Amino acid sequence: DSNLKIFSLNSNSALAEEIAQVVGVDLGKCSVQRFSDGEIQINIEESIRGCDVYIIQSTSAPVNEHLMELLIMVDALKRASSKTINIVMPYYGYARQDRKARAREPITAKLVANLLETAGADRVITLDLHAPQIQGFFDILIDHLMGVPILGDYFEEKKLSDIVIVSPDHGGVTRARKLADRLKAPIAIIDKRRPRPNVAEVMNIVGHIEGKTAILIDDIIDTAGTITLAANALVENGAKEVYACCTHPVLSGPAIERIENSKIKELVVTNSISLPEEKKIDKIIELSVAPLIGEAIIRVHEEQSVSMLFD
Amino acid sequence: DSNLKIFSLNSNSALAEEIAQVVGVDLGKCSVQRFSDGEIQINIEESIRGCDVYIIQSTSAPVNEHLMELLIMVDALKRASSKTINIVMPYYGYARQDRKARAREPITAKLVANLLETAGADRVITLDLHAPQIQGFFDILIDHLMGVPILGDYFEEKKLSDIVIVSPDHGGVTRARKLADRLKAPIAIIDKRRPRPNVAEVMNIVGHIEGKTAILIDDIIDTAGTITLAANALVENGAKEVYACCTHPVLSGPAIERIENSKIKELVVTNSISLPEEKKIDKIIELSVAPLIGEAIIRVHEEQSVSMLFD
Ligand SMILES: Nc1ncnc2c1ncn2[C@@H]1O[C@H](COP(=O)(O)O)[C@@H](O)[C@H]1O
Ligand SMILES: Nc1ncnc2c1ncn2[C@@H]1O[C@H](COP(=O)(O)O)[C@@H](O)[C@H]1O
Repeated sequence: DSNLKIFSLNSNSALAEEIAQVVGVDLGKCSVQRFSDGEIQINIEESIRGCDVYIIQSTSAPVNEHLMELLIMVDALKRASSKTINIVMPYYGYARQDRKARAREPITAKLVANLLETAGADRVITLDLHAPQIQGFFDILIDHLMGVPILGDYFEEKKLSDIVIVSPDHGGVTRARKLADRLKAPIAIIDKRRPRPNVAEVMNIVGHIEGKTAILIDDIIDTAGTITLAANALVENGAKEVYACCTHPVLSGPAIERIENSKIKELVVTNSISLPEEKKIDKIIELSVAPLIGEAIIRVHEEQSVSMLFD
Repeated sequence: DSNLKIFSLNSNSALAEEIAQVVGVDLGKCSVQRFSDGEIQINIEESIRGCDVYIIQSTSAPVNEHLMELLIMVDALKRASSKTINIVMPYYGYARQDRKARAREPITAKLVANLLETAGADRVITLDLHAPQIQGFFDILIDHLMGVPILGDYFEEKKLSDIVIVSPDHGGVTRARKLADRLKAPIAIIDKRRPRPNVAEVMNIVGHIEGKTAILIDDIIDTAGTITLAANALVENGAKEVYACCTHPVLSGPAIERIENSKIKELVVTNSISLPEEKKIDKIIELSVAPLIGEAIIRVHEEQSVSMLFD
């Protein structure tokens, strides 16, 4: 379909290539560079007049650079008379700034939604939002894909026996439940508590983990503090071995070192965020979201029912 | 006036201090930092409910970081019930992307205007826009200050004799005329021409410069190619000495080296963009825009006539 164009910006070019292959088109030609002073220079090098355009860009680190690339690209496409502009944002940066936890805080996740709309986006396709409420921040169409099936398929193929799915905190229980349903496994929850002020936190495990293969699941692993402490607590409390998985491997600061030094046997992630070479350690297994996203683009483009793919 | 608050973000904190002194208030307390993954974290540390708030931030390099700091700060202020949000942006980044010079280019200067409005700004105070048309990109109030008087005062005090004001290209003639009027001097123009394709450009000087003290003026000096070639051409054509001045010292890439190696005797700039230590070379003289901006804030805040200050 010559009316469908997919462009890649700088956050995930390998994933964009893969998605284009799944969809069966070549990536659109454009250059996204910097002027000498660091300002973004975008040139779209083919006509997109009347086309449905899909831009592949996660707002992963450097988040402000990637977000501005996206906004400027949307502006350029709009002025070049594209029919629709669809943002494919496998990782939605600033998703954790989704409410005022304290007085006088910004709600940057909402600001980002407004900025994308202002630039001229018609639709956003994203994956495992930190909070599903962020969907409500948009007045344009938003499609919310789920990574759990991809992670679940991987563990199913491993044919592990006697597994338990573990949420590293209360907030992640719904996510753990989804993976557990898929793998027909029980769940457990790490219940961190500070018994008295100024006393160290206690890692209390709710559920049965002794002698079992534990699979920790989270949406984002950032500095990896929570997940590695959880893994070590599971082993100390008698788990046979510990796997961990997440959709979005942010892996900032001490994350890689902590994972290397932890009791985690294998960390399974998706390529929603592209890992630089120095973060591709043996323990980390990357699964591709290209088939999921490619299929979503095809279905959106065909204006078919997409309900099977979306939650 | 306890109703007037001035906050500084990270681009120009020294200038913001100075502006606060001119206005006679303390800078508002806020912290603008980064989470481990590079996302911006802003905490406003005092109540601003019902206040007229002025944010000092140039969108100089790193432009995307500085712009996002500004947008997130505006979002936080809006949600904290400020009465008005006034952006003081001495340097307006992306101002050179102000029209479609080629097919399928963005108009990022207009996008930036829309983003500031969407975030919740009520007013923008800025200085020497690359193109005055950018004022028309805003539906909110915009005050456009002029740097020529500051540069003019400096040269007046130097009591140079037999001067000529030189525009380095056709686009800058209006600006050169303003400085010339102020200093009661004639003007000259550098008229770059390529006689035939694939033949080097010729620097043709229109106007009388022999034996004179030439003062080159531009709005932005970025890589300093144009201005240093112009200076050298002036000396080769018999100018006695060459000064240069601009409002916005972007000074990226080879700029400092080119200026050091050029025939420019002194480069006079303003602190609309804060110079890092390594760019503070002897040839560069920095003039402060704090009195100009401080007075503008006082007058805007007093809702007095501001016509004397603005063009
Ligand atoms: N990029 C970030 N890195 C670490 N913490 C963040 C980030 N963005 C927001 N937060 C904080 O994370 C908390 C929200 O996370 P959660 O409770 O898991 O939804 C809030 O207190 C935010 O201030
Ligand atoms: N940050 C930048 N650095 C260098 N050139 C730029 C920048 N932004 C825009 N331009 C280009 O500068 C030209 C506009 O400059 P001007 O003709 O002086 O208004 C356009 O061709 C732009 O593509």
